[in-house]
Amino acid sequence: METKKIFLPEKEIPRQWYNIQADMPTPLQPPLNPATGKPVSPEDLLPIFPMNLIEQEMSTERWIDIPEEVLEKLITYRPTPLQRAYALERYLKTPAKIYYKNESVSPAGSHKPNTAIAQAYYNKVAGVKRLSTETGAGQWGCALSLACTLFGLECKVYMVKVSYEQKPYRQLMMKAWGAECVSSPSRDTNFGRKVLAEDPDCSGSLGIAISEAVEDAATSENTKYSLGSVLNHVMLHQTIIGLETQKQFEIVGDYPDVVIACVGGGSNFSGLSFPYIRDKIHGKDVQVIAVEPTACPTVTRGPFAYDYGDTAAKTPLLPMFTLGHNFLPKPIHAGGLRYHGMSPLVSRLILDNLVQPRAYNQLQTYKAGMIFAQTEGLICAPETNHAIAAAIDEAEKAREEGVAKTIVFCLSGHGLLDLAGYDAYLSGKLTDYSLPEEEMQKSLEAISSFPKPVV
Amino acid sequence: METKKIFLPEKEIPRQWYNIQADMPTPLQPPLNPATGKPVSPEDLLPIFPMNLIEQEMSTERWIDIPEEVLEKLITYRPTPLQRAYALERYLKTPAKIYYKNESVSPAGSHKPNTAIAQAYYNKVAGVKRLSTETGAGQWGCALSLACTLFGLECKVYMVKVSYEQKPYRQLMMKAWGAECVSSPSRDTNFGRKVLAEDPDCSGSLGIAISEAVEDAATSENTKYSLGSVLNHVMLHQTIIGLETQKQFEIVGDYPDVVIACVGGGSNFSGLSFPYIRDKIHGKDVQVIAVEPTACPTVTRGPFAYDYGDTAAKTPLLPMFTLGHNFLPKPIHAGGLRYHGMSPLVSRLILDNLVQPRAYNQLQTYKAGMIFAQTEGLICAPETNHAIAAAIDEAEKAREEGVAKTIVFCLSGHGLLDLAGYDAYLSGKLTDYSLPEEEMQKSLEAISSFPKPVV
Repeated sequence: METKKIFLPEKEIPRQWYNIQADMPTPLQPPLNPATGKPVSPEDLLPIFPMNLIEQEMSTERWIDIPEEVLEKLITYRPTPLQRAYALERYLKTPAKIYYKNESVSPAGSHKPNTAIAQAYYNKVAGVKRLSTETGAGQWGCALSLACTLFGLECKVYMVKVSYEQKPYRQLMMKAWGAECVSSPSRDTNFGRKVLAEDPDCSGSLGIAISEAVEDAATSENTKYSLGSVLNHVMLHQTIIGLETQKQFEIVGDYPDVVIACVGGGSNFSGLSFPYIRDKIHGKDVQVIAVEPTACPTVTRGPFAYDYGDTAAKTPLLPMFTLGHNFLPKPIHAGGLRYHGMSPLVSRLILDNLVQPRAYNQLQTYKAGMIFAQTEGLICAPETNHAIAAAIDEAEKAREEGVAKTIVFCLSGHGLLDLAGYDAYLSGKLTDYSLPEEEMQKSLEAISSFPKPVV
Repeated sequence: METKKIFLPEKEIPRQWYNIQADMPTPLQPPLNPATGKPVSPEDLLPIFPMNLIEQEMSTERWIDIPEEVLEKLITYRPTPLQRAYALERYLKTPAKIYYKNESVSPAGSHKPNTAIAQAYYNKVAGVKRLSTETGAGQWGCALSLACTLFGLECKVYMVKVSYEQKPYRQLMMKAWGAECVSSPSRDTNFGRKVLAEDPDCSGSLGIAISEAVEDAATSENTKYSLGSVLNHVMLHQTIIGLETQKQFEIVGDYPDVVIACVGGGSNFSGLSFPYIRDKIHGKDVQVIAVEPTACPTVTRGPFAYDYGDTAAKTPLLPMFTLGHNFLPKPIHAGGLRYHGMSPLVSRLILDNLVQPRAYNQLQTYKAGMIFAQTEGLICAPETNHAIAAAIDEAEKAREEGVAKTIVFCLSGHGLLDLAGYDAYLSGKLTDYSLPEEEMQKSLEAISSFPKPVV
């Protein structure tokens, strides 16, 4: 019997996160205060984040200890298995070995709790009693609700109205974990009430939900705001994915030639790849591929520029690949990849040629997801299907070249709560989208006057 | 850091199933042909089952080898973790140690694939190309669809119309795994067409769906029928749950005082408990509790009698606890526990005082499920919440008695696709049901003239 899952014993779980800022060839440029054009200071962020997380956000220490209390919660589902896709390999008739790091085994069904648990902990030790956040499709809201119940914090989630109504199961998950989940725009904030006064039928947007959550944090007692991607400390917390993967490959005496993950804000990608990019910086021959949708081609076609992290233009300006903060991508099913910007860390690594960006059309990703479901048995999230599509392409290339490569991708989440896309695919109604050039240029006009980062 | 999950390495996966028929103090009485009143012969079952599974159904061999090809598929998700519920223990302030065997990590989200994979394999080696089955809430249909895609078999699922329409995600899962899933009554069988001719708006029933699936198997080329519970070979395949659990307890040097699982048809209960009941038969002091809903109190209040396994009265007569095959339980959310009968094996073990039956009202099970979700972080299936309720009761009893017992229960499935019950609970709309005595007696009239088994 071939070994299918490489398990790391709990006692082997990594005890430190890896901070790639210690090794980057080009250091990050600072976020800017949009009003002054000056770098943001830690104090500027205090109304919405606790100081311990702000320090992590700005740290350049290579290794940061994972607190014991965080490890105790992470082992609810970690270490996650590294699985070998034998059936997929046989189906593809490839000499390549394909592995996937299975983050879908968390109680929330995705990698998101890795940072939610850490953030809940740091807020708790900073004396915070309550966290506010926004959620689009619901993955992040679920992860933070889970983390808050594990640490006994209150949690309020502003969920974009259209998702709140279309995805009742997601808000029920949050409520089962004791969180308060409201449809955004809500009557609970000044901003929400203002929006509703202007348009009582407003279906909401991520920008509106962020504004509500930030206002809540800034104006409520003992409350801070929490974000599930983009920021440096989020990427830091996710590196446990790749650090575990490295230990697991050591167990079987293998090392990947190709490392693949999908990118929206960058969190599951950073998690799997940063420890490998460290090796690459130090001379290791490893190819790292970031996969995004053609409908939202941030890193394959967008410019590297200073832009707001949110559509509401409330955050500092971040140096990153962007399609413009007003960009509204077509409603592809991979909701987690419909983000106009990209983690500044990931952006910098792409500029420095350490990461190879790639975009796929929607139909191809579902075709890949169906092959995976029918060979390996796992129905993946639409976001994950982007990584699978690239893994299949690389495995087919290996077959054509006759090379026995080792490929690993991040299975960032299962698709059991997002099956509408499979329905559309199976009934022949799924369509492809590629962003037209004119539309992108038009969206980018909004940031043409912003300060320019050094490329 | 305390060890939370006890992992069994893949190479330690049990290589044999345990057949409790070899050790039962009282042997099973045979199923009867309702027309003749005579015991059913293997040949009687051949139109719908392959001979290798019929042999397993009737075997009294203690250990039956698990084929290598079955193990290769099982390790997609097995061995499953045995997890310690530290947070729940602390919440309950109990000296008891509470463990749960987490079967929710399978790609279908429940323990059902354990037998689906075995059945698909045995059918495949018998030359069968296609399996038919019925499904109510959808768990079993999903598991068999998964198993069939892993072995390259065709699969047709007749899904009760009301569930087909209310649970679109379930049928989408089956379709993503390549199965054909139709709403029952369908136009694809004589029986379905007959039902629709009489009542075009018929919302379907499990009985109708079974009749359609059996007709399909009996009349289609290279097709057999597959069942997800009740039968002896199903219980056999599930014993891998308890055999793994025993090995995992050995790793930590512990042994349970109390073993708990919910019972509908008996499959997850048998899986966890049979290896422990073997120990009990051989003198070990272990308490085994089977938990059912008060709305469908088969083993706590029903008589032990010969009855049909299905509401359509198509199967042989089985010696079991039953509420009468026409019994229609109230629509509690634990769909998998709404079954009129009980596995003959489990029934016999209850009669012989090796298993202690217990019933809970719906509200109490959801209260328990909410406590579990907010302490351990896992949102469980409504069926599983019955086992959790009993585990909590036993842990509280241990606290009152000041005894440090070890409790283990089967976490048979997650609840991410069945959140409607949580919604009802959270909004105060969930109600309790207990079956009125008159209603039970009325339902039992239908079987009053059947042959009587020896008690």
